[in-house]
Amino acid sequence: MTEHSLWRFSRALHRAINDRHFEDIEALIDEDVEWALYGPIDMFPFLGARQGKDAVLDVIRQLADNFHVRRFDRESIMLGVDSAASMLRYSLTALDSNKPISLRIAHFAQFRDGRLLNLRILVDSFDLVEQALGRPLHLPKIASFA
Amino acid sequence: MTEHSLWRFSRALHRAINDRHFEDIEALIDEDVEWALYGPIDMFPFLGARQGKDAVLDVIRQLADNFHVRRFDRESIMLGVDSAASMLRYSLTALDSNKPISLRIAHFAQFRDGRLLNLRILVDSFDLVEQALGRPLHLPKIASFA
Repeated sequence: MTEHSLWRFSRALHRAINDRHFEDIEALIDEDVEWALYGPIDMFPFLGARQGKDAVLDVIRQLADNFHVRRFDRESIMLGVDSAASMLRYSLTALDSNKPISLRIAHFAQFRDGRLLNLRILVDSFDLVEQALGRPLHLPKIASFA
Repeated sequence: MTEHSLWRFSRALHRAINDRHFEDIEALIDEDVEWALYGPIDMFPFLGARQGKDAVLDVIRQLADNFHVRRFDRESIMLGVDSAASMLRYSLTALDSNKPISLRIAHFAQFRDGRLLNLRILVDSFDLVEQALGRPLHLPKIASFA
């Protein structure tokens, strides 16, 4: 039994982000890839939707410019033949400020011939914004929700 | 082949939220359920972690007090024997203000004997906060991210 595409992709992605080694990940992305990283793109220009391998590699380079992955824990996982979904908790370092960022994400991935064809990532975006700002945003308690 | 637990649970949950019909969902929640809805609990007290059927039913009642589900589209889905994960786009109405809220969520669920045993839900929380406030939060563009 061969290794699931997710493990190979995950290893290559982390190697790209932490070591700026982009050759492995480049070989694991389909030319027609669809990519979406949902979140506030005004604050984080590397978030948003991308189409095609070049655009996705560009995002991965921006992630490498901005973050170091200290560790990640996979809290939930589901694997299909050519698909995978997981929820993970990442411990990152923001490289500009050297600040630690702890972030929960969920992803759904589809592969074709072992290469990434579709990836959608949802992040706990409010948590990310507060940590990037380095301070809590004071929000009203919605009255009827009390 | 019997129907997957996810479909029964999803139907009962939406019936509870929209019609305040709680009998069906009550029968589909394990006594030892673990529940987590990640997001800013200061603003939305029904977010957060809950343990046990009574605590989870209480959250579902609070969701029914606050929201109406107008529609939902399942964008990604993975089904296992006793597990399921999906990414969905919800169109809600906030009942206090009658405001529409459009929200992307990802969930990972585990079932035991057809009943919910574990549910983790991640929401695009920054998007939720801005829509609940009814205005954008102005954020700095992180310089090194440009």
